[in-house]
Amino acid sequence: MLDISIPFLLASHTTVATLILRPLLSHWHLYSFPENGLPLLLTSASGGETYAKGVALAVTLTLIIVYVAAQIFGELAIRIGLPAVLGELIAGLVIGLSGLQVLMLGEGIQVADWMVALVSSIAGSSHTLTREIFDGPVQVLFDDYAQNGVGILLFKIGLEADLKELIRVGPQAASVAVAGVILPFALGFWGLSAIFHLGNIPAMFGAAALTATSIGITSRIMQDIDVLKTREGQIILGAAVLDDILGIAILAVAVGIAEHGTIDMTSVLGTVVNAVLFVAAAIALNRYFGPVYINFLSRLGNPYSILIGAITFLAFMAAVAGAIGLESILGCFAAGIVLGNTSATQALEKACDPLVALFATIFFVTIGAKTDLTVLNLSNPDSQAGLTIAVFLILVAIATKITAGYFVFTKDKVDRLAIGVGMVPRGEVGLVFAGLGAATGALTASINVAIVLMVMGTTFVAPPMLRWAFTRKAAVSR
Amino acid sequence: MLDISIPFLLASHTTVATLILRPLLSHWHLYSFPENGLPLLLTSASGGETYAKGVALAVTLTLIIVYVAAQIFGELAIRIGLPAVLGELIAGLVIGLSGLQVLMLGEGIQVADWMVALVSSIAGSSHTLTREIFDGPVQVLFDDYAQNGVGILLFKIGLEADLKELIRVGPQAASVAVAGVILPFALGFWGLSAIFHLGNIPAMFGAAALTATSIGITSRIMQDIDVLKTREGQIILGAAVLDDILGIAILAVAVGIAEHGTIDMTSVLGTVVNAVLFVAAAIALNRYFGPVYINFLSRLGNPYSILIGAITFLAFMAAVAGAIGLESILGCFAAGIVLGNTSATQALEKACDPLVALFATIFFVTIGAKTDLTVLNLSNPDSQAGLTIAVFLILVAIATKITAGYFVFTKDKVDRLAIGVGMVPRGEVGLVFAGLGAATGALTASINVAIVLMVMGTTFVAPPMLRWAFTRKAAVSR
Repeated sequence: MLDISIPFLLASHTTVATLILRPLLSHWHLYSFPENGLPLLLTSASGGETYAKGVALAVTLTLIIVYVAAQIFGELAIRIGLPAVLGELIAGLVIGLSGLQVLMLGEGIQVADWMVALVSSIAGSSHTLTREIFDGPVQVLFDDYAQNGVGILLFKIGLEADLKELIRVGPQAASVAVAGVILPFALGFWGLSAIFHLGNIPAMFGAAALTATSIGITSRIMQDIDVLKTREGQIILGAAVLDDILGIAILAVAVGIAEHGTIDMTSVLGTVVNAVLFVAAAIALNRYFGPVYINFLSRLGNPYSILIGAITFLAFMAAVAGAIGLESILGCFAAGIVLGNTSATQALEKACDPLVALFATIFFVTIGAKTDLTVLNLSNPDSQAGLTIAVFLILVAIATKITAGYFVFTKDKVDRLAIGVGMVPRGEVGLVFAGLGAATGALTASINVAIVLMVMGTTFVAPPMLRWAFTRKAAVSR
Repeated sequence: MLDISIPFLLASHTTVATLILRPLLSHWHLYSFPENGLPLLLTSASGGETYAKGVALAVTLTLIIVYVAAQIFGELAIRIGLPAVLGELIAGLVIGLSGLQVLMLGEGIQVADWMVALVSSIAGSSHTLTREIFDGPVQVLFDDYAQNGVGILLFKIGLEADLKELIRVGPQAASVAVAGVILPFALGFWGLSAIFHLGNIPAMFGAAALTATSIGITSRIMQDIDVLKTREGQIILGAAVLDDILGIAILAVAVGIAEHGTIDMTSVLGTVVNAVLFVAAAIALNRYFGPVYINFLSRLGNPYSILIGAITFLAFMAAVAGAIGLESILGCFAAGIVLGNTSATQALEKACDPLVALFATIFFVTIGAKTDLTVLNLSNPDSQAGLTIAVFLILVAIATKITAGYFVFTKDKVDRLAIGVGMVPRGEVGLVFAGLGAATGALTASINVAIVLMVMGTTFVAPPMLRWAFTRKAAVSR
């Protein structure tokens, strides 16, 4: 349903004429037109199925709903002293599966009937076609917007990061990251096996889901409450990056065990080696390539050149990270590191602001909109069992990361509690574990529910906790 | 091929795990998994068809190619004293159908074999799947990026427009617009009938394609050479907007005649009335709604609120314009008009810059990449006949719009030649006429080729002409 190809036609799905023309042309290769006379769609031009008009309207309507919800709940969060990102997550919950069910991002995009009716009545498309439009192109676009948002956010955080400080806190971040992976995995695996009598493979996936901090969520929260540049903020950032790399390695281990009953050490070692080389390359590039590249871009006549050149490099680094088996957002972060501390860094940071505002907001709202609180339905036995396991997992998730904060390897005076709290939000990586585990067929519905609840719980509890941890610290030290 | 739905999974097609997981989950509802053990795609996780990884890589690679080409040819254009936008159009020609054939945006997206091979080898997708990825999601995304680009560009131009000046030059713009529609239509129709002996319907479509100035191209050129704020610039802008509305009315007439042999006056009048009401509403809203809305947004705690609120309003206006039968980019322009001249206007203009830089660049490069110069192949008789007609059409297109400039209804001293030249670029609307005409079956291949060549010719000739016209003026008046 996505053949919207248009011969010798400019990208102009906004033109009214094109709204008629495009579906027409898209059918061109599917049906032969009557030789003389107009094809059906043109004859009924004003009332026919106007696919492209439907796409434009569906995207616009979705965007408006996401933004209005983000503004309302972001503002409410700020008013009661919480970071805006928590409001955006809640905005997603409210409009999503768990709330008003206006925009449900579970499997594909499903939307409320009134949205389908509205788009259909204006675009003149059938309800079925409109649903396909939401589920097809709109889904592709919002997925992409959200990804761009978190990518640019991480790029900006990379630009802002103090590389010397980050290298200096490297060993401290590493100690937090390693402890923050081993502790939750060990305690989670033990508990799921010993208390809940799960088999080794489901226990392993459940425990693995506890390991990786969500770098996107934790850095946005720190940005909102303006603690990213503190020593603690940089340790959390470094540890979250390392955590992500360790998480990918654990994923390789878990899949290997589930698949063959063995550990694929080649894959695990390969990921770790790639990650080390990638980070080392970014640090070297910051010294030797970043300033030269920015200097070159600055000499170009188009004032937009620096931004376009920076985003080109960002895209390149994201692709390289993806190609060598790391997360692309790590590539975005690394691109920021490389272009940090140059003559154009500040201008680039400013230029990123509108992009972050528009796209990262979509990322955080869609996280909420994808969260299905209806799994909490307690009349369902799976859900009851899941809830019990979830309570256990959430407690382990929070307690072990906070404990990991105390493993900071330093003699300096740092706020270990704040660091641990900063590592609490799990987010997307945990859900990937749940999804992969479910795909093995080894996870029961209840453990699956529990993992999803754990991710949600840690994500939603982190913003207020982090705020509390940092204000408490300020209260002490001031 | 676009079912990339993912249950309870965050928008994370960048995560390596997801790259494995997503295609897997997308098949979940299509195939039943083996009850115990891993499904095929997971078993061959590292080498399997990884759809989402392919999408991410294909988008990234396309983006890098578009941006690098835009930078190179934009810079070359600037170096020889031409506006950057001409370089971007040429960049599109060079990488597109007419040049290196790296990125061909004719029907869907087709790309060079090495791009397919590169993406396939990294993502582990088959060549067939990779081609489908380019033709499906990548096409959707770049179409959307380009549309967002021209939409934001027009929004920014609306913000920058001096509404009082625009209303003041209204009658002058109207006289240019009306003359600029009647003259090319009349001369074009006469020539195509009398000289080239075309039938009434093909002559009508060919003539209609001559009428509408491309507001996107002309405003970007004026921005590049910094004449948008001159009296002449505002007249061109106003006339281009009116032109677009008249173009849509003519389209309704042409389709009516081709379809029923009659003119559907209801539809024509309806469009004109809607357009008048829409413009009047925007002017009223600028006075009564714009400042109140901006004031409201300024009071919100999130510093991003103003931009998000402005873009929400932009989306709303674009949807309204589309719903009442106008071009959505007119809605974007109107949204800019409404939010112009407020306390936040300057900040909004600045915030639009990075968005215009990144997205409008894609718009202009893709215009070039969609242009098929291979129609110039003179061994083809259709192409020979087309070329003769094209020369006629290009001369008419340029001469009539320049003449229209002299119809400016004013006693003031304005540069009538510069105004006429500013109306020359045709762009997308002309191509829509060609496409609609072709769909009637009434246009021969040669007239079709001629229309495409006319659009290309006027688009490519406009930047240097406009620059010349305005510098000549400066030379005179200084």
